[in-house]
Amino acid sequence: MSFDRLIEKIDAMQNPTVAGLDPKLEYITDDIKKRAFEQFGGGLDGAAAAVLEWGKGMIDALCDIVPAVKPQLAYYERFGWQGVKCLTETIEYAKEKGMFVIADGKRNDIGSTMEAYSDAYLGNIEIPDGVIEPFGADALTVNGYLGADGINQPLKLCDKYDKGIFVLVKTSNPSSGQLQDKLLENGNSVSVEMGNLCRELGEESRKASKYGYSAIGAVVGATYPEQLTALRKEFPGMFFLVPGYGAQGGGASDIIGAFDENGRGAIVNSSRAIICAWKKRPDVDWQTAAREEALSMKKAINEALGR
Amino acid sequence: MSFDRLIEKIDAMQNPTVAGLDPKLEYITDDIKKRAFEQFGGGLDGAAAAVLEWGKGMIDALCDIVPAVKPQLAYYERFGWQGVKCLTETIEYAKEKGMFVIADGKRNDIGSTMEAYSDAYLGNIEIPDGVIEPFGADALTVNGYLGADGINQPLKLCDKYDKGIFVLVKTSNPSSGQLQDKLLENGNSVSVEMGNLCRELGEESRKASKYGYSAIGAVVGATYPEQLTALRKEFPGMFFLVPGYGAQGGGASDIIGAFDENGRGAIVNSSRAIICAWKKRPDVDWQTAAREEALSMKKAINEALGR
Repeated sequence: MSFDRLIEKIDAMQNPTVAGLDPKLEYITDDIKKRAFEQFGGGLDGAAAAVLEWGKGMIDALCDIVPAVKPQLAYYERFGWQGVKCLTETIEYAKEKGMFVIADGKRNDIGSTMEAYSDAYLGNIEIPDGVIEPFGADALTVNGYLGADGINQPLKLCDKYDKGIFVLVKTSNPSSGQLQDKLLENGNSVSVEMGNLCRELGEESRKASKYGYSAIGAVVGATYPEQLTALRKEFPGMFFLVPGYGAQGGGASDIIGAFDENGRGAIVNSSRAIICAWKKRPDVDWQTAAREEALSMKKAINEALGR
Repeated sequence: MSFDRLIEKIDAMQNPTVAGLDPKLEYITDDIKKRAFEQFGGGLDGAAAAVLEWGKGMIDALCDIVPAVKPQLAYYERFGWQGVKCLTETIEYAKEKGMFVIADGKRNDIGSTMEAYSDAYLGNIEIPDGVIEPFGADALTVNGYLGADGINQPLKLCDKYDKGIFVLVKTSNPSSGQLQDKLLENGNSVSVEMGNLCRELGEESRKASKYGYSAIGAVVGATYPEQLTALRKEFPGMFFLVPGYGAQGGGASDIIGAFDENGRGAIVNSSRAIICAWKKRPDVDWQTAAREEALSMKKAINEALGR
């Protein structure tokens, strides 16, 4: 039911940022990989073990200063089912440490199939042993190209289990405008039309929320600051997940438009800048490098927000 | 490099259909489930074991009459990482039996992340043990909302490893028109604009193909036969994956528009009608029921195509 839970975590830490977990082996220090491959072999088991140790270490380094973590499912799936097992354990660990977990899977399908994705990431399934949460994330990113059918299914679980979804509205990548910026006959861009659909579907959950944000949030990239500002004004009831900060080019001044007058309404993601910080910091260990980068991002955003 | 390989399998069997694997426990017979839960426990391991036995049995029943199989990733992910492990083994088994495997994951993301999905489903990764294909599918469904960035990455692997992708153009679900049918200022619908992007990006691979179909196919639903026919005319170089036949309401007469003048150019999916056929056939076992339903679908489509 809305993003109240996430907003309160952000407020408590005074940090509207989320750390993106994009586990590529080249982002992981040699000693972790060496240990994992020695113990679990040089196959996918070993790779997944390295990713798990890395993910837990990253969570340890950040969990008291960063409210949320965003595992990117593609990078876990790249290590096969062993990577997906590691994703499950990483999510579990992040939740134990009190972090809000956004599963970045950009899932989408027809209604009946979207129900299965929703059960997997936000809900649960009943099997003989009882009710089990397959992944147990707090939020899921969703692609809304199929219309309401693909959004209403996860929304049901958001209401039931106090979860949220972020629907792709305006993405951070260079070619996002090829479809999303196209103007419709009614004068709206495709991304605004997507936003309108989300606003309409999320209206009931917004009414039930404490801070005025519905359970249907939006992904809006930091790399298009003018659109970010315009979309914030257009959709005051939608909480924004803002990718593209840091390595993709967005800076603190680019994302202030994502926030409301109370400094709420958005969470800014940084993946590579945080997780690869150690490569530019031979003076400290990888966890310290990630933590200090996260603190410097927090500071830069709070300063840009004038606080 | 195009869909030549799939087209030749279809021609050899004279059957332009694909069986969709949507493993819900209620679609699996009690004796399979009983055996699996007794042997592997009542948790996700037991559920995944049931799904694996069922999937292998379905493949055995169909592999000499149906050229392709389409596992729906959502239903596997619903059983957690154990389900994803079972997906991996199901894909491997289908390929051993000579079937073309379409991983129905509707994946999408920015370029760097889409590279990871492409490696996972269509390509391979290098780890100390060597080069490993995490999932090893022949084709992947893709959502193109992010534009060329999300399509070019898998396309590279299609060219390199002789694979294909199907980009969602006009989906079969009731709400697909909410975005996809919207008209742009230039007079095109959003779905036609998506098709235009795919045609442009796939042009090189079309030139290299034997049958004139590029490596970028399209998902176009059987439930909108007029649009299906119009899109076939508009995009003669794009191979269509046509869902919505059978349980979703599309019939043989609805899908003839998807084919070219040689009776090629499309593969029609049926999931529930095949996999749940046993529920209406107490006279035969579940595999015979599936096989007979698949044969009757083949016959109906070939008759509608006048052959």
